[in-house]
Amino acid sequence: MELLDQYKAIQKKLKAYGYVINVVGWDSQTEAPRGAFQRRAEMLAVLSQEVFKLRTGDEFKQAVYGLYERLDELDKHMQLEIKRAKKDMDKMVKIPENEFVEYNKLVNLSQRLWEDAKAQDNWDLFKDNLAKLVDYNRKFVSYYELDMEDYDVLLDDFEEGMTMKQYDHFFDTLRKELVPFVHKVLKDGKPLKKDFSTNSFDPKKQKEFCDYLIDVLAFDRTKGLMKESVHPFTWNTHPSDVRFTTRYLENYVFSSIFAAIHELGHATYEQQVDDKWNDTGLNGGASMGVHESQSRFYENVIGRSKAFWEAHYPKFQEIFPEETKDITADDFYRNANKVEASLIRVEADELTYPLHIMIRYEIERKLFSNEIEVDELPEVWNQKMVEYLGIEPPTNAEGVLQDVHWSAGLFGYFPTYALGTAYAAQFVHAMKQDLDLDDLVRNNNIKAINDWLKEKIHQFGQSKTPAELILDVTGEPFNPIYYVEYLKEKYTELYF
Amino acid sequence: MELLDQYKAIQKKLKAYGYVINVVGWDSQTEAPRGAFQRRAEMLAVLSQEVFKLRTGDEFKQAVYGLYERLDELDKHMQLEIKRAKKDMDKMVKIPENEFVEYNKLVNLSQRLWEDAKAQDNWDLFKDNLAKLVDYNRKFVSYYELDMEDYDVLLDDFEEGMTMKQYDHFFDTLRKELVPFVHKVLKDGKPLKKDFSTNSFDPKKQKEFCDYLIDVLAFDRTKGLMKESVHPFTWNTHPSDVRFTTRYLENYVFSSIFAAIHELGHATYEQQVDDKWNDTGLNGGASMGVHESQSRFYENVIGRSKAFWEAHYPKFQEIFPEETKDITADDFYRNANKVEASLIRVEADELTYPLHIMIRYEIERKLFSNEIEVDELPEVWNQKMVEYLGIEPPTNAEGVLQDVHWSAGLFGYFPTYALGTAYAAQFVHAMKQDLDLDDLVRNNNIKAINDWLKEKIHQFGQSKTPAELILDVTGEPFNPIYYVEYLKEKYTELYF
Repeated sequence: MELLDQYKAIQKKLKAYGYVINVVGWDSQTEAPRGAFQRRAEMLAVLSQEVFKLRTGDEFKQAVYGLYERLDELDKHMQLEIKRAKKDMDKMVKIPENEFVEYNKLVNLSQRLWEDAKAQDNWDLFKDNLAKLVDYNRKFVSYYELDMEDYDVLLDDFEEGMTMKQYDHFFDTLRKELVPFVHKVLKDGKPLKKDFSTNSFDPKKQKEFCDYLIDVLAFDRTKGLMKESVHPFTWNTHPSDVRFTTRYLENYVFSSIFAAIHELGHATYEQQVDDKWNDTGLNGGASMGVHESQSRFYENVIGRSKAFWEAHYPKFQEIFPEETKDITADDFYRNANKVEASLIRVEADELTYPLHIMIRYEIERKLFSNEIEVDELPEVWNQKMVEYLGIEPPTNAEGVLQDVHWSAGLFGYFPTYALGTAYAAQFVHAMKQDLDLDDLVRNNNIKAINDWLKEKIHQFGQSKTPAELILDVTGEPFNPIYYVEYLKEKYTELYF
Repeated sequence: MELLDQYKAIQKKLKAYGYVINVVGWDSQTEAPRGAFQRRAEMLAVLSQEVFKLRTGDEFKQAVYGLYERLDELDKHMQLEIKRAKKDMDKMVKIPENEFVEYNKLVNLSQRLWEDAKAQDNWDLFKDNLAKLVDYNRKFVSYYELDMEDYDVLLDDFEEGMTMKQYDHFFDTLRKELVPFVHKVLKDGKPLKKDFSTNSFDPKKQKEFCDYLIDVLAFDRTKGLMKESVHPFTWNTHPSDVRFTTRYLENYVFSSIFAAIHELGHATYEQQVDDKWNDTGLNGGASMGVHESQSRFYENVIGRSKAFWEAHYPKFQEIFPEETKDITADDFYRNANKVEASLIRVEADELTYPLHIMIRYEIERKLFSNEIEVDELPEVWNQKMVEYLGIEPPTNAEGVLQDVHWSAGLFGYFPTYALGTAYAAQFVHAMKQDLDLDDLVRNNNIKAINDWLKEKIHQFGQSKTPAELILDVTGEPFNPIYYVEYLKEKYTELYF
């Protein structure tokens, strides 16, 4: 089929452009000197224009729509790829070019404004731009002329197949089952015997320990590496080159350790996707939610487990003999799982984390069904913080202004964080039918866990939808109760 | 002028492609995991094809030849740029595409063969490919139909304006004036009192010292950085992002120090080119020779000077207190300038280095005037080593097979190394009319030296030819006698 060749040829070019732009991004985020950025922006603008021309050009449109009309003649994977390409193309062609350009300018400006607003704790500086961003998103959704609620369209953008109906059920479960438990832990849980989390640990030695950990977790260093950056992240171009970063804070040793394990989880997923998807549109992780399920699995289920620290605390002691004189493996495990009502999402512990997400979901949901307006956000935010976590942010910088997402026009993104963590619990429930997880962790056989995940989840890339993956791996559709049960069991043992 | 816009638009795209390919190259040479390279090659092939299409496309041809016909209407810098672009284009269009493709395949294959041949000390494995590479170069030169000797065409490719006539004069001077002096030093020079050059020095501390040095040498870290790689090199995209590497060998501390200073010399040059050339074809260093003059100036004239080590040996002692117990600043200075007859060019000292180059020049010169054939190279090589340095390579791996250049089809490149070093001596002679170089080095005011070089040489980028630069900076044409005098003076003081 000529159309198919045409489609593949353009896709190959898009992949090549994406590849090099990606490498430049890695360099920008990990080592480029300050002086590099102005010229870099000019040069990337030229390439971005080439990419835009390819993506929106008649040739690609022709190929995508042409193939969509002849779906029956394609194999099932190409069908899936073309359906998704067509869905994206539909959205793209319906936005007038001038509005698209204006919107991108607005996003760039808003991100700078948000940085200032957060630094100065000045909500007024940002709110008009945020309102414009919301309006643009509402308008774009209306252009798509889909038979869906506005917010459902946005939710589906970040997690294919997820709608308010399902998220409502998810968050209702959390509200009903988890919130009372969290309140109980915060009120009646026995306090830590020894809190050393803000003690000083030499960053260079932290790096040595993280290096040890990534070998423990069987990360393939011939196909990736770990580096340092201000904000930890995972980066990949294809399964044989997957990298991640962590950061070393002298007075918060858990930051480097759990950021490293979290990002390693994302990275292991990407490394284990089958190479056969490299040249297709089905490469990489299945969805944001499934991706987060893997990072949270490695971080929380493995990394914050008792068995893990029984096995690896001795190495930590070896590296920090002075600093750990009065600290036991059990102290370490308990510190790594310390629960507290806190203001900042990215610093929240495993148990209270989903409540931070719930607040954002409820706000976005009301915003896009016109039940609240942008002006009201600080007040609504603070009310919900009091309701769910019992604390009120003293400043907007520590409240409604804390996250970058909205300034980048990303609405519908937040819920995938909690969803992924809940997916993880359901996957773990299935994994435990096949593997003695605790035993493998304690005996340092992470490879067996990686292999299970590869076979059941990772290898498939995007060739299964999140819902298909969950059904295939666990034998039932997504069910948030596994998440609630996992948290209740773990934190009951820790706190009561 | 529409043609000028067309030319500039294509050049901008070429610069953008060059930029990203460059960043990928930096990543490849400094940190990419082994697994990255196969996919990387596939993706870069797609971009290279786009670059090839742009460079050889009718639009660019039209622009270059069209502008060449209307040179009078252009300003003097654009005239220079278009003349050079036309010269390149002439060469490109005269090579049949299939031969160009075949040649590139041959180069790729030959580099792999050369690696094996060198590793196995097996000349026969490589010689036929080398003969083919020589033949291709002879043939391509004949296609250009220039009224020049074959080797002159190649020499001019690497150093604009240089021909055998000038190089002969240069190397004749060295043969006559320098070779007897080198023999005298090797025979009668007083030996080192204390040779510590292969003592052990912790690579981590070596890095600390190199970090100190690059601040001493006033390198602008907001516009660049130093990293580590197997083969030290300098990399730049534009004056605000210039990077270089060094390597740390535990048992050869001079490697990290002088590779760092050498590459910093290249890097300082690139940082100090005026930003006004960024979007033109006149950006970057003036030529390979002028570039090498700067790296050798920083490495040898500053870095291997007595004044430099009087100023900075105390810091070295501070970092290596145990290792330097019995070593004085004077010992350090003498070890850094140790002369010996050695087999390998890249490890040669400052005094014998040009003799290694002379051998390569004489061989290339005879090869391209058909006075010798590839088959004879090992024998000719060894004869010349005995003649100039008094030693015979025991293997071809340590002789004719040692350098990568010929396997990459680079003929005419070598002489620029010696030429650049000689340029440096002439520049220094001029610099000393304006500056008290020793005093500035001793008192740690390298910035004043950088400023002088910026004003006289660096700022101009490629807007002056090497010959123009030398005339403007020193008031006379290139004269190799300054180089001979510099070496004789320095090494007489050291060795007699």
